[in-house]
Amino acid sequence: MLKNYEIRRYQMPQEEIKALVKQKREELVHQQQLIKEHKLPVLVLIEGWGAAGKGTLIGNLIKELDPRFFTVINMDVPVEKEKRKPFLWRYMEQIPEAGKFVFLDSGWVDELTDAVLAEEIDDEVLEQRIQQIRTFDRQLKDNGYLVVKLFLQIPKEEQKRRLGKLSQKKDTKWRVADKDHMQVKKRKKYEEIYDRILEATNTGYVPWNIVDAVDKRQALLQALHVLTNQINQAVENERILPEILHKDYPLLKMQPLAKIPLDQEMTKEEYKVRLKELQKKLKKLHNRIYRMRIPVVIAYEGWDAAGKGGNIKRLSGALDPRGFEVHPIASPEPHEKARHYLWRFYHRLPKDGHIAIFDRSWYGRVMVERLEGFCSENDWKRAYNEINEFEKVLSDWGAVVIKFWVHIDKETQLARFTQRQNTPGKEWKITEEDWRNREKWDDYEAAIDEMIARTSTENAPWYVVQSNNKYYARIQAIEIVIREIEQRLGVEI
Amino acid sequence: MLKNYEIRRYQMPQEEIKALVKQKREELVHQQQLIKEHKLPVLVLIEGWGAAGKGTLIGNLIKELDPRFFTVINMDVPVEKEKRKPFLWRYMEQIPEAGKFVFLDSGWVDELTDAVLAEEIDDEVLEQRIQQIRTFDRQLKDNGYLVVKLFLQIPKEEQKRRLGKLSQKKDTKWRVADKDHMQVKKRKKYEEIYDRILEATNTGYVPWNIVDAVDKRQALLQALHVLTNQINQAVENERILPEILHKDYPLLKMQPLAKIPLDQEMTKEEYKVRLKELQKKLKKLHNRIYRMRIPVVIAYEGWDAAGKGGNIKRLSGALDPRGFEVHPIASPEPHEKARHYLWRFYHRLPKDGHIAIFDRSWYGRVMVERLEGFCSENDWKRAYNEINEFEKVLSDWGAVVIKFWVHIDKETQLARFTQRQNTPGKEWKITEEDWRNREKWDDYEAAIDEMIARTSTENAPWYVVQSNNKYYARIQAIEIVIREIEQRLGVEI
Repeated sequence: MLKNYEIRRYQMPQEEIKALVKQKREELVHQQQLIKEHKLPVLVLIEGWGAAGKGTLIGNLIKELDPRFFTVINMDVPVEKEKRKPFLWRYMEQIPEAGKFVFLDSGWVDELTDAVLAEEIDDEVLEQRIQQIRTFDRQLKDNGYLVVKLFLQIPKEEQKRRLGKLSQKKDTKWRVADKDHMQVKKRKKYEEIYDRILEATNTGYVPWNIVDAVDKRQALLQALHVLTNQINQAVENERILPEILHKDYPLLKMQPLAKIPLDQEMTKEEYKVRLKELQKKLKKLHNRIYRMRIPVVIAYEGWDAAGKGGNIKRLSGALDPRGFEVHPIASPEPHEKARHYLWRFYHRLPKDGHIAIFDRSWYGRVMVERLEGFCSENDWKRAYNEINEFEKVLSDWGAVVIKFWVHIDKETQLARFTQRQNTPGKEWKITEEDWRNREKWDDYEAAIDEMIARTSTENAPWYVVQSNNKYYARIQAIEIVIREIEQRLGVEI
Repeated sequence: MLKNYEIRRYQMPQEEIKALVKQKREELVHQQQLIKEHKLPVLVLIEGWGAAGKGTLIGNLIKELDPRFFTVINMDVPVEKEKRKPFLWRYMEQIPEAGKFVFLDSGWVDELTDAVLAEEIDDEVLEQRIQQIRTFDRQLKDNGYLVVKLFLQIPKEEQKRRLGKLSQKKDTKWRVADKDHMQVKKRKKYEEIYDRILEATNTGYVPWNIVDAVDKRQALLQALHVLTNQINQAVENERILPEILHKDYPLLKMQPLAKIPLDQEMTKEEYKVRLKELQKKLKKLHNRIYRMRIPVVIAYEGWDAAGKGGNIKRLSGALDPRGFEVHPIASPEPHEKARHYLWRFYHRLPKDGHIAIFDRSWYGRVMVERLEGFCSENDWKRAYNEINEFEKVLSDWGAVVIKFWVHIDKETQLARFTQRQNTPGKEWKITEEDWRNREKWDDYEAAIDEMIARTSTENAPWYVVQSNNKYYARIQAIEIVIREIEQRLGVEI
């Protein structure tokens, strides 16, 4: 895109350009109200050469906007904490709420290019990340986001001239980084990598826009044009449903719940001995994954009263408390609801070397949200693939991903409900909602079977934990975690 | 506390200690439910010598707890991002929600001691931070928190022995840091600083508990005793109202609103010329505070329709968008409401060198929350001092703190309400609530007068912006910001 870039400028007198800028700016001010009404979140990514004027352009774009409706974020080089998360994690953190703008001052193109040039990543990782960007763009788009991507282009000589000028003044000298000079020196190399990334992520749903940034007013007008047009388009097309994709993730063959036997037995004594052994083993493994910086993500789902809580407790009881966190997932808070539904789970990902246990998870989308109508049919049907993609990001990052369905039969649930209700000090554990959910058992079972069938991948398998006997279930879950971690370590060592 | 520390151990057979540990642990498990019912947030800080067994103790404390109700946080050395915030910011970030435990694995004592020994801070800053800790402890306590502080004590020889043992094994070698050896080498110096901090922060409301950590079971029992006792006490005393303090912050003499003239005039032409000049000036200053890493915190409060939004827009219009953020403050979300009311404002503090503009602020506590009964009388009466303390933290940190009351008279408000209601495209700006608030004008005016009188300090002054003429008000606000920043720079240069 850059190599064969042809200059495209508005051929008109300065005065006309000025007038057009004014007009487009007014349109953008009007559009603030529009995106608020339509709850449209707008993510504007400004990439480009050093000294191409990214900051100035953003300053000019937001000039008349109401500062309550936008945020400008300077994406510096990633800090240690960010490096311990998946590559796009820090961008996901910054996506706007519905009805607001976020302007990113440089982003993943720059970060990726630097990493390649510093030889921090090889070709395979580069390709993986490019795929992640494509997925990120599409998922945002499909979930109602407008993503506008601009790349500010200036020729080598112009960049050199600008850097020289900035370096001479005391007031601006500090703004020139070594990296900027490097771009001039290794222009071709940079251009090549920029181009590779831009081309590979120049998709129909989120295209790149190359802005000719030699003249600042021209650049501003081009950017305003792109931005206002894309906002209008997004509003116009908001009722068009996104396509439902099924990517070819190799799915494991899973049994429907009805076929899972639940008659396992285990005595308390047997359980106690086994638990002690397994917890000891898991403790050692925890130490090793900590040292090897392997992240572990465990999602727990299951029937009410199936024993999720007790199961999690026995698992976490084996772990060094400084190296794990349990995230109870309730219905989303307003600032969570105003973003992509996976945002709050990204936000809670562990650092590498740590374990995150989710007590209920992103699978709410294809269970409770589906059955209670909290999202549209298109939303939950799309979610199987979106979740597979999310978990692919996790395993690409190096994570061990395990998903548990804690399973009991309907009779056992009834017995436990009744027992809770009749035990002083346990009544709070059973609510009206639990009884209501129970009435929908068959609908849930069908949804769960579909979920397990469609999202059980090799890198992120589902395990049905047989929990009519809680002791058995706890031992089963810990054994699975140990096996999955050992497998992962086996590959590593 | 450490120098003259006398060993205090339970003098009883191991079997009895074991039985007591079991009993206390069961009590703690029961208390989980208790703190949930009473919405009591519990912050447990574990400090102590390297290799004193902090991690093991925490592991033992939480062993039987439900992992959904606690978090363990390892407070590593502060990272760059944290260093650019006030000293206690990263601890404030971690305070528990109502009904939950947070266990901190080392904290401010360790951080402060390291900073002193590395000669990063001088005596004056140490003293300032000790005061901040005292305030932090008291504010948490007054706002319904239980803060439990434990220091694990081991003699020098024991520490040396443990470090030696850890260093020998391949599996544990990595856990010994240079700092640990340093503690043995410079035992006296460390002891002296530890002692100074412990003694100065050993208050009646949040005392220190020295735990004899030579024997692990003894240490666990002591810690369990302290923790369970303090939880019982906190629950028992929950209805006792905290004292209302008025610290001696030098207050500026302020006029009541009724005496503020509002008949200023300014033509659009005059305004335009002046605005351009001032914005240019402010832009330069913004660049300088960025380079000198001075944080700026500006709070906007004002009558409905007084022109806050437009005022903020003209101010921010002068700023480099990468160096400021506007935070619109609505009613708190559930996770915000479950914490100290200042938490969400701490959370939004700028990095040093950046400007944060709050569109409504922490002053909601003594206005809307007071008048609508969203908090108790004791709460809002305490808030004047709490807010002064909060702003003292900001100015100690080096921040320029400015508070604006955007003022109009009652007639002007009526005229603007009516105009909004009759202007297509502006109706959304006026709601039923605005009309209801208007009816309470006199109550609000009294509350505002009291607020301004009680929280206008030299380091964080209130300015009443005269906004019957919006042009005048905008110019006035920018002039004030320029003056305050210039004053701050004057001191610095």
